[in-house]
Amino acid sequence: MKEFLYRFKQKPTKATIFTMLSLLILGAYSAYAQEDAGPTAADAVFVANNVWMLVATFLVFIMHLGFASIESGLTRAKNTTNILFKNVSIVAIGILTYAIVGFNLMYPGDFSIGQYFGFAGFGIASPEGAAGLIAYADGGYTYWTDFIFQAMFAATAATIVSGAVAERIKLSSFLVFSTIFVALVYTIAGSWKWGGGWLDAMGFYDFAGSTLVHSVGGWGALIGALILGPRLGKYTKSGLKPIPGHSLPLATIGMFLLWFGWYGFNGGSVLSADPGLVSLVFVTTSLAAAAGIIGAMVISWIVFKKPDLSMILNGSLAGLVGITAGADVMTPLSAVIIGLIAGVIVVFSVIIIDKYVKIDDPVGAISVHLVCGIWGTLAVGIFAADFSFMTQLIGVLAYGVFTVVCALILFLAIKLIMGLRVSEEEEMAGLDIGEHGMEAYPDFQQISDSGGSTMNYPPSEG
Amino acid sequence: MKEFLYRFKQKPTKATIFTMLSLLILGAYSAYAQEDAGPTAADAVFVANNVWMLVATFLVFIMHLGFASIESGLTRAKNTTNILFKNVSIVAIGILTYAIVGFNLMYPGDFSIGQYFGFAGFGIASPEGAAGLIAYADGGYTYWTDFIFQAMFAATAATIVSGAVAERIKLSSFLVFSTIFVALVYTIAGSWKWGGGWLDAMGFYDFAGSTLVHSVGGWGALIGALILGPRLGKYTKSGLKPIPGHSLPLATIGMFLLWFGWYGFNGGSVLSADPGLVSLVFVTTSLAAAAGIIGAMVISWIVFKKPDLSMILNGSLAGLVGITAGADVMTPLSAVIIGLIAGVIVVFSVIIIDKYVKIDDPVGAISVHLVCGIWGTLAVGIFAADFSFMTQLIGVLAYGVFTVVCALILFLAIKLIMGLRVSEEEEMAGLDIGEHGMEAYPDFQQISDSGGSTMNYPPSEG
Amino acid sequence: MKEFLYRFKQKPTKATIFTMLSLLILGAYSAYAQEDAGPTAADAVFVANNVWMLVATFLVFIMHLGFASIESGLTRAKNTTNILFKNVSIVAIGILTYAIVGFNLMYPGDFSIGQYFGFAGFGIASPEGAAGLIAYADGGYTYWTDFIFQAMFAATAATIVSGAVAERIKLSSFLVFSTIFVALVYTIAGSWKWGGGWLDAMGFYDFAGSTLVHSVGGWGALIGALILGPRLGKYTKSGLKPIPGHSLPLATIGMFLLWFGWYGFNGGSVLSADPGLVSLVFVTTSLAAAAGIIGAMVISWIVFKKPDLSMILNGSLAGLVGITAGADVMTPLSAVIIGLIAGVIVVFSVIIIDKYVKIDDPVGAISVHLVCGIWGTLAVGIFAADFSFMTQLIGVLAYGVFTVVCALILFLAIKLIMGLRVSEEEEMAGLDIGEHGMEAYPDFQQISDSGGSTMNYPPSEG
Repeated sequence: MKEFLYRFKQKPTKATIFTMLSLLILGAYSAYAQEDAGPTAADAVFVANNVWMLVATFLVFIMHLGFASIESGLTRAKNTTNILFKNVSIVAIGILTYAIVGFNLMYPGDFSIGQYFGFAGFGIASPEGAAGLIAYADGGYTYWTDFIFQAMFAATAATIVSGAVAERIKLSSFLVFSTIFVALVYTIAGSWKWGGGWLDAMGFYDFAGSTLVHSVGGWGALIGALILGPRLGKYTKSGLKPIPGHSLPLATIGMFLLWFGWYGFNGGSVLSADPGLVSLVFVTTSLAAAAGIIGAMVISWIVFKKPDLSMILNGSLAGLVGITAGADVMTPLSAVIIGLIAGVIVVFSVIIIDKYVKIDDPVGAISVHLVCGIWGTLAVGIFAADFSFMTQLIGVLAYGVFTVVCALILFLAIKLIMGLRVSEEEEMAGLDIGEHGMEAYPDFQQISDSGGSTMNYPPSEG
Repeated sequence: MKEFLYRFKQKPTKATIFTMLSLLILGAYSAYAQEDAGPTAADAVFVANNVWMLVATFLVFIMHLGFASIESGLTRAKNTTNILFKNVSIVAIGILTYAIVGFNLMYPGDFSIGQYFGFAGFGIASPEGAAGLIAYADGGYTYWTDFIFQAMFAATAATIVSGAVAERIKLSSFLVFSTIFVALVYTIAGSWKWGGGWLDAMGFYDFAGSTLVHSVGGWGALIGALILGPRLGKYTKSGLKPIPGHSLPLATIGMFLLWFGWYGFNGGSVLSADPGLVSLVFVTTSLAAAAGIIGAMVISWIVFKKPDLSMILNGSLAGLVGITAGADVMTPLSAVIIGLIAGVIVVFSVIIIDKYVKIDDPVGAISVHLVCGIWGTLAVGIFAADFSFMTQLIGVLAYGVFTVVCALILFLAIKLIMGLRVSEEEEMAGLDIGEHGMEAYPDFQQISDSGGSTMNYPPSEG
Repeated sequence: MKEFLYRFKQKPTKATIFTMLSLLILGAYSAYAQEDAGPTAADAVFVANNVWMLVATFLVFIMHLGFASIESGLTRAKNTTNILFKNVSIVAIGILTYAIVGFNLMYPGDFSIGQYFGFAGFGIASPEGAAGLIAYADGGYTYWTDFIFQAMFAATAATIVSGAVAERIKLSSFLVFSTIFVALVYTIAGSWKWGGGWLDAMGFYDFAGSTLVHSVGGWGALIGALILGPRLGKYTKSGLKPIPGHSLPLATIGMFLLWFGWYGFNGGSVLSADPGLVSLVFVTTSLAAAAGIIGAMVISWIVFKKPDLSMILNGSLAGLVGITAGADVMTPLSAVIIGLIAGVIVVFSVIIIDKYVKIDDPVGAISVHLVCGIWGTLAVGIFAADFSFMTQLIGVLAYGVFTVVCALILFLAIKLIMGLRVSEEEEMAGLDIGEHGMEAYPDFQQISDSGGSTMNYPPSEG
C-alpha cells in the first residue's frame, strides 16, 4: 500500500476519486481474474485508463522528434547531422538506462538515505501474482505502462541540454554526460517529489515537471553552455553577432510536435483517464500555449519592431513549460495569465542571456525550460489555492542546487578526462564533417571535396 | 435538457443509442459521485468516450501543422517565414477567441434573434454542480472536452484563408481579419447548424463541416484572393505563369498530417466513441481520401500528360473535404464515389480558377475547401437517404451569402483602414525580409547583405 | 465461431482472457441492444477496445508519411517528387484494393484450395444483424475497425519495395507492380497465418508481421533491386561509389514517425486493449528500437571510425522489425537482446549487400525489412517458450519462396510488357523532371530551363 501510493505523482490527499478507484480496480480485477466471470465496470475503467496512459506515452515519445526538429532548425546546416544524431541517441539511452536503473531510482519504494535516495534494484520485471502480468497496477494501469510512460519522460531532460550545447560540444562527451545525467541525476532528483521523497512530504507541487523535467534539463543546459563558452564568432570585438538557424520550417515542425506531445506529457501526468482532470489539463495546456504565442508576439513586435517567428515558437513552448507545474489545478483564466507572462518572460530572457549575460544558447533552451520552468513552479504558489509559495521556492532552489552541482561535476570531469569541445577547425567546418564525416544536405551544400556524404562506407575504397 | 441537445451536431432524432446513453451516464455518474460506491458501467463508457474525444482533439490540433506545411511547401521560399508565422498565430488566436466569445456564440443555448444569433456570455467555466468538474457532460464527455475539441475546429476556418492570400497580404491585416473571422463569422454561422439554429431546424445536415468549416473558410479565401488580386508576375502579357512551390516534401508532410488529423476531425464529430459510428467514419474517410488521390491522378495524368504530385496531394484533401459532410451516413461504395468525384473536381477547378477565372490561389484552397466542400454537402442530399438535396442546397447558399458578405465587409474595411497588400518591392524581395526581417533558410538562400537572419535582436547593434 | 477465431492473429490457445471476453461482449452487447437497458461492463470494455484499435489504425496510417520521409531523405533531391508520388499513391492503392479484394482474400473464412487460398467475395459490408452496424465484432471491435486496421497494414508491404527500387524504376511500372503485389501476393500470403491457413495450423507464430509484412515487402524489394540493377554511377571501374541521400532531417523525421506508428502496428496487433499485453508490447517495442540504435551505433562507430546517422536510423528500424514477430511474448531482456542483434545485423547486412553482393538498395530496405524480418521471426523460436525454431524456419522459407516467385513473375512480366527502368538520360536528369515534369525544390535546385516547376498546367501556354 505504501509503495502503491508512492508511485503517484500527486500526494494521496490530492488524489481524485479516480485514484481511489484504482484501489477498487485492483481488488476487483484480481478478484475477477480468479473467478473468470464477465468483466466488471472497474475492469472497464481499468482498460480505458490504460489506453489513455499508452496514448500519452506515444505522445511524449514524439516530443523527441519535436526536440530534434526545433534544435536542428534553429542551428546551422553544417551541424544538423550532429544534432539529429544526439537527439536520436538520447532516446535510446534514456529508455535503456531507465530500464536498467532509472525507474527503480526514481520510484524506489523505500528510501535508504533519509528521503533523499533509494534504489529498488536493477532491471524491470512485472511483479508476479495470481493475475499474472496485469496484477500489478497503479491508478488503473499496468506496471509496464507505468514504466514506459515514465521512461519517455526521462530522456527529455537530457534532450533539453543538447540544444544549449549545440554546434560545439564533442559528440562522445555529450553522450557520456547525457547517459549519466538521465540515469542518475534526473532520476534521483525526481524521487524527491514523484518518488515520494522529502519534497513530496513537504507539500511541494509539480504536476508534470516544470521543475522536475524542464528546470532540471535547463540547469544542465545552463552549466553546459557556461563551461563550453560561446560558439566561434558569436561575441566579437564589433559586438554580438546573431547566428540564424538554417530552417524555420523544421523549427516550426518541432514546435508543433512538442505542443502535440505535451497533451500526453501533461494529460498523461493525471495518471488516469479521469475525464474531468484530463480534459481540464487539455484546456489549460492549450490556453497557456496560445497565450505564450500572443505574449511573445506582442513583446517581440514592440522590441524588435518586427514580428519574430523564432520568438513566437519559443513563446508557445514557454507557455507550455509554464503551465506544466499546475496544469491540473488552474482555471482557464489563470492558465492564460501564466502563459502570457511566460511568453513575455521568454523574450526578455533570451535577450538578457544573449546580450548581457553573454551565455550562448543557440536555441533558447535556458530561457524556455529553466526560466519558464521556474516561473511555472512558482506560479502554482501564486495562482492555485492550497499551495505555499515558499515551499514551491524551496523546491525550485533544491533542484537548482542539486542539478547545478551534479552538472558541474559531470561536465568538468568529462572536460578533464576526454575534453568537451571540438577543435576550432572542426567547429568552423561544421560538426557534421568533423564528427560524422557526412553532411545533412549534400545536394544543396555542394561541398567540393569528397568528404561529404550521408554514408561512411565503404570504409577504405575511394 | 434543451441546452443539452443543442450542443449535439446531429439532430436528436438521429442520435444513436450512445447519445441516449449519455443521459444515463450523466445521471449515473452524479449518483455515483455522491455515493462513493464503485464505478458503474455507464461511468466506464463515459471514461472511454472522453478519452476518444480528447484523442480527436489532439488530432485536429496537429492539422494546423499540416496546414502550415502544405501552405509553405506550395509557396516560395522567400515567403515561408511569413506563412509559418500566420499559421502559428492563427492557432493561438483561434483558441483564445474561442474561449473569450466563440464557444458561447456557436453554442448559445438560447437564441436571442430568431434562430440566427445567440450569445451565452464571455469566457468559459465548467458549470458547477454536485459532482464538480465532471458534472457537466455532453454525450459522455466533459464541458472542458467539449470546449477544447470545438476550439481546435474554430481555427481551421481561418487557416484555410491564409493559403489563398499567401505571398502578398500584409501580416497585420491578415491577423486582424482572421481574428474577427474566427471569433464572429465562423461561430455565428456555426450556430445555425451545430448550435441548434434555423438550418438545424430545417433538416440541413453537415456532419463534420464540409460547409460549416471548409466552405466557410473557402468563401473567405475566395473573397480574399479576389480583393487582393494575383501575385506579381502571375498573369503577364505573355500569359499565365505558374509559380511553383519551394518544397514538395514539406507539402507532402502537410497532406499526410491533414489526413491523419482528419481521423479526429471526422471521427471526433461523432461526439462519442460509439464503436459502430466512429469506425464507419474511419472507413468512409479513408476510402474517400484514397479515391480522391486516384481521381486526381487519373485526370491530371490525362490532362497534363504527366502525373502531378501537387494534384494528388490536393486530390486526397478534396476527397476528405468531400466526405466530411456525410462521413457517418455513407456506405463504403458511396464514399469511394464521392472521393473519386472530388478528386476529379479539384483538378478541373484548379485549372479553371487559375486559367480562366484568373483568381490567383497559390495553394488551391478555393478548389479544395470551397468547391469540394459544396460538393460534399450536396452529396449528402444525393447519396444518403433521409436528406433533402434542396435543403442541402439552401444550407450551402445561406453559408455562402453570409460568409461572402462578412468577408467582403471585413476585407474592404481593413483595406481602407490599414491597407491589405504589401508593397511591390516587398513582394518581389519576399515577405520574409519585408515583414519579418528574417529568412526561412539563411544557409541556402545565401543573401548577400546582413538583413537576413532568423533572429531580430540585438535590435540596434551591428 | 470458427470464423471468429480465424480472424485472430494469435492461436486460440494463446488467447488471453480478453479474447475470451470478446465472446461475452458479443453476446452481452447483442442482448443489450435488444433490451435497451443501460450499458453493461462488457459494453464498456467493447467501447474502450474499439477506441484503442482505431488509435492503432491512425498510428499505422502515419507510418506511410514515415516511409515517404525516410525514403526521400535517403535519396537524391532530383528524385524526390517521384518517391513522394509513389508513397502517396501506394496508400490509396493499398486501401482501395484491400476494400475490393484484399480483406476477403486475407481473411477468407473458409479456404477453397486446401488451406492455401480462399476468397470471401468482392467488396466490404458490415454483416447485418439484430444490433445493426455494431453487431459484427471481433475481439471487441467492429467489422469496420477490423477492415480499416488491416487495410493500413496492407499498403506497408508494397511501400517497403519502393525504397529499394527508387531512383530508377518507371512510375507506371511500379504502380502496376504494387497494385498487384498488395492486392494479391500480400493478402494470399497473409491468409496462411493470420487468415487461419496452413502455417497457422502448423503453429507458426508471427505476432505483428516480421515475416508477413516486412519480409514479404523485403523479398519484393530484393527481387526488384536485382532485376532493375544498380543506379548509374553506383558501381564503377574505380569501385563502389556511395550516393548520399539529400536530406538527413527528412530521413530522421521518417524514422521517428515509423517508430511512432509502430506503437499502433505492434500495439494494435494485440487486437484488443488488453492492458497487460498492449503495455508489454509497448515496452518490448521501445526497448528493441532503443537497443537497435545502440547496436548499430557501436558497430558502425567501430567499422567506419565515425558515428553514422543513417546507420542508427536503420538500427532503430531494424530493432523494430526484429521485435515485431514476438513483441507480445518477449521479456524486456529478450527484447533488448533481439534489438541489439538486429542493430548489429543491419550494419553488416548493408555493407555486405552493397559492397560484396553488389545489389543497389538506396535506403537499406532489404537489410532492414527482409534480413531483420527473418531474424525477428526466428528469434521467436529462440527466445520464446512454446514455439518451435523449425516451424518458424519453415514459415520464413515458405513466405520467401512464394513471394520471390510472385515478385519474379510480376517484375519480369512488367519488364516485358511495359518496361521497368527509365532511360539513362532520365535517370541522369532525375525522375522528377523525366516522370513528373516538376522539381521538388525549385527555389534551391535553380534549374536553368523552364521545365522545372511544381505544377504542370497550363498544359500548353508558355
